[in-house]
Amino acid sequence: MNAPKPATTVGIVGAGPSGLLLARLLHNAGIDCVVLEARDRAYVEQRQRAGVLEQSTVDVLRESGAGERLEREGLPHGGIELSWNRRRHRLDFPELTGGKKVWVYAQTEVVKDLIKLQLDDGAPLLFEASVTSVTGGGAATATATATATANGTANDTDTDTDKPTIHYTYEGEDRTLTCDYVVGCDGYHGVTRKAIPESALSTYERVYPFSWFGILADVPPSNDELIYAHSPRGFSLLSMRSHTVSRLYLQVPNGTDPEAWTDEQIWDELEARFAVDADWKLERGPITQRAVLPLRSSVTEPMRWGRIFLAGDAAHIVPPTGAKGLNLAAADVTVLARAFQQLHEHGDHSGLDAYSDTCLKRVWRAEHFSYFMTTTLHTDPDQSDFATRLQISQLDRIASSPHAAAELAENYVGIAL
Amino acid sequence: MNAPKPATTVGIVGAGPSGLLLARLLHNAGIDCVVLEARDRAYVEQRQRAGVLEQSTVDVLRESGAGERLEREGLPHGGIELSWNRRRHRLDFPELTGGKKVWVYAQTEVVKDLIKLQLDDGAPLLFEASVTSVTGGGAATATATATATANGTANDTDTDTDKPTIHYTYEGEDRTLTCDYVVGCDGYHGVTRKAIPESALSTYERVYPFSWFGILADVPPSNDELIYAHSPRGFSLLSMRSHTVSRLYLQVPNGTDPEAWTDEQIWDELEARFAVDADWKLERGPITQRAVLPLRSSVTEPMRWGRIFLAGDAAHIVPPTGAKGLNLAAADVTVLARAFQQLHEHGDHSGLDAYSDTCLKRVWRAEHFSYFMTTTLHTDPDQSDFATRLQISQLDRIASSPHAAAELAENYVGIAL
Repeated sequence: MNAPKPATTVGIVGAGPSGLLLARLLHNAGIDCVVLEARDRAYVEQRQRAGVLEQSTVDVLRESGAGERLEREGLPHGGIELSWNRRRHRLDFPELTGGKKVWVYAQTEVVKDLIKLQLDDGAPLLFEASVTSVTGGGAATATATATATANGTANDTDTDTDKPTIHYTYEGEDRTLTCDYVVGCDGYHGVTRKAIPESALSTYERVYPFSWFGILADVPPSNDELIYAHSPRGFSLLSMRSHTVSRLYLQVPNGTDPEAWTDEQIWDELEARFAVDADWKLERGPITQRAVLPLRSSVTEPMRWGRIFLAGDAAHIVPPTGAKGLNLAAADVTVLARAFQQLHEHGDHSGLDAYSDTCLKRVWRAEHFSYFMTTTLHTDPDQSDFATRLQISQLDRIASSPHAAAELAENYVGIAL
Repeated sequence: MNAPKPATTVGIVGAGPSGLLLARLLHNAGIDCVVLEARDRAYVEQRQRAGVLEQSTVDVLRESGAGERLEREGLPHGGIELSWNRRRHRLDFPELTGGKKVWVYAQTEVVKDLIKLQLDDGAPLLFEASVTSVTGGGAATATATATATANGTANDTDTDTDKPTIHYTYEGEDRTLTCDYVVGCDGYHGVTRKAIPESALSTYERVYPFSWFGILADVPPSNDELIYAHSPRGFSLLSMRSHTVSRLYLQVPNGTDPEAWTDEQIWDELEARFAVDADWKLERGPITQRAVLPLRSSVTEPMRWGRIFLAGDAAHIVPPTGAKGLNLAAADVTVLARAFQQLHEHGDHSGLDAYSDTCLKRVWRAEHFSYFMTTTLHTDPDQSDFATRLQISQLDRIASSPHAAAELAENYVGIAL
């Protein structure tokens, strides 16, 4: 790819799942777009993230054409287990939600599938294209556009000259990409957010006083379904990438050095947190990756400023306890792709104008659920015994009340909003 | 009453609703008991407390014989309203809980009814009988008794000499009451708790950074049902004692002086917190009582030490947001009265032995619910905007999800445990 395009309809910053899926949906709708990614392909394809997909995420991946391997290799899960006080309780999702389930399929695999599709026949996707800034696209223009739309005289290109420009370096040269619209899929610390004046955004945030120590291990998972475990030793999560690869997490103090633990210490600690009796053993195997990730909740409002849109982690972060991050990102770009299609096919801006409000409804529901799961299952370093008893009471209630169980299950499988 | 009894089967410390109801239930079962109350009758009958009775509380009051006026004057309520973001949402209890409702009838009236019954034909009830200490009754004995019971050789009186003694002053004289059992119904700061070694009890606690400013006013309630209002100005609750007496509460900072507010300031602030639009007005009237009460959650475990039992506020405190305090107290003494009856009629200690565990299940459920209601509806002085958005998201969810609504409603009307 020697001569990158100088202009496009939708410039997408970031080739994570939101940027890639958006590009695929736009390309399928005949809308011109370009994806710029600062890292190289190998890095992007190895970046460990989520692994639980809601049905609606699976549906849009299928719709986008990226569902083939997912359907073959993804593991449908009809429930999760909660563990506390040396007991386990299974939540049966289809029973509690009228038939819904989730899919275990790693984000890395979603990304690989989408990259392959895009490189085969998709829109331009440039790796190692490092965006330095986004200029223009300001909200004054957007207000004018919105007014025009309200008056039934939507006109995207003629009256509007403040198109945003993406400035980036690629193959050693400074380049620009002029766009009708820019979508920031470049995460919380990305460049796109910085293109929007601080005064135009409100950020709501919470940082948690603990992190997750995550490992990948070449060993079949010790349980068929995910186990979310409350323990006096701290939270732990048993998850999996496939029938042969386990993914496990331990709550650890912020700042924990993952290299400071031996493999044996990790397995011992995991086993102690999951065990419901002395006989229960965790299958152990070679640990192939380890990392410590801090937990954060964050929402930026609105998710649009003029011709610049934010999607996925660039607009909101959830702690991973509810498995919502990737699913929110997929929901954002699904809404956005439909809005661009509406504009492209009918000259109708209303979808773009509603984008932020539409997404934020789902975002806040997921933020609340992720906060609920996190604070119900983790132990704060300075947590009172009273607070611990409330957690136990909440978990006991989920195990005994069909309504409390269904409330958790509905949020977990994903709520149509 | 010139010659108080020197001995009884069950000595009850405190003539609040739990002590009075217990005395009534024991008396009806033919079990000898005495109630000692430090305050005078007028004080006890005027002490403003709760006003919402669960069906099970109403049922046990009826069973005790104290249901006549309650049935005539109590107001059955089929729902409550939640208010936030200038909207209101009604929870229909019968619809959400399979037919249940609650009753509005003031604790003061319950107390008056029970005192009248007891003075008419009940067990001895001494006002201005100030308990200075409870001695004996220790747990070593209780363990022996429990062992004997387990061996099927329960024998209450012969092998067991460590009966507790209540020391009190009455009509200027120091007196004692020797009891087979003592029940502390004398609240969180009562003497009975202090008779139990600190090492034998665990207390779980949370103090909230706000109080309730409660008023009684001679004006018909401005709404037929209770309104629990979340507001950026702080929580408020519209409640009532009857068709002509309103009971209203404002969240205020701890340490607020109730006399520092004019009547007009109180009404203005209440109106601002309840208003969903500019047209909505609160009916105003003469304010007849005002008080500021701090909010606290507290649980003491176990609720028994040897021959000494704790019931109601002596064992647990809930913040009033879920209307659970009086109902928990009624549930405690219902369980306890049945256990004493079991012992009295069959020589069977198993009910007494199970008392603490049986009650604590319900207590922790109510503690969790009261905490949930309190933290969902109040605004902490240092609350983040993120936390406020989570509250809104939770309330939006209750308004849109049948499961979330039913979970609140089931807890509010009371869960059979």
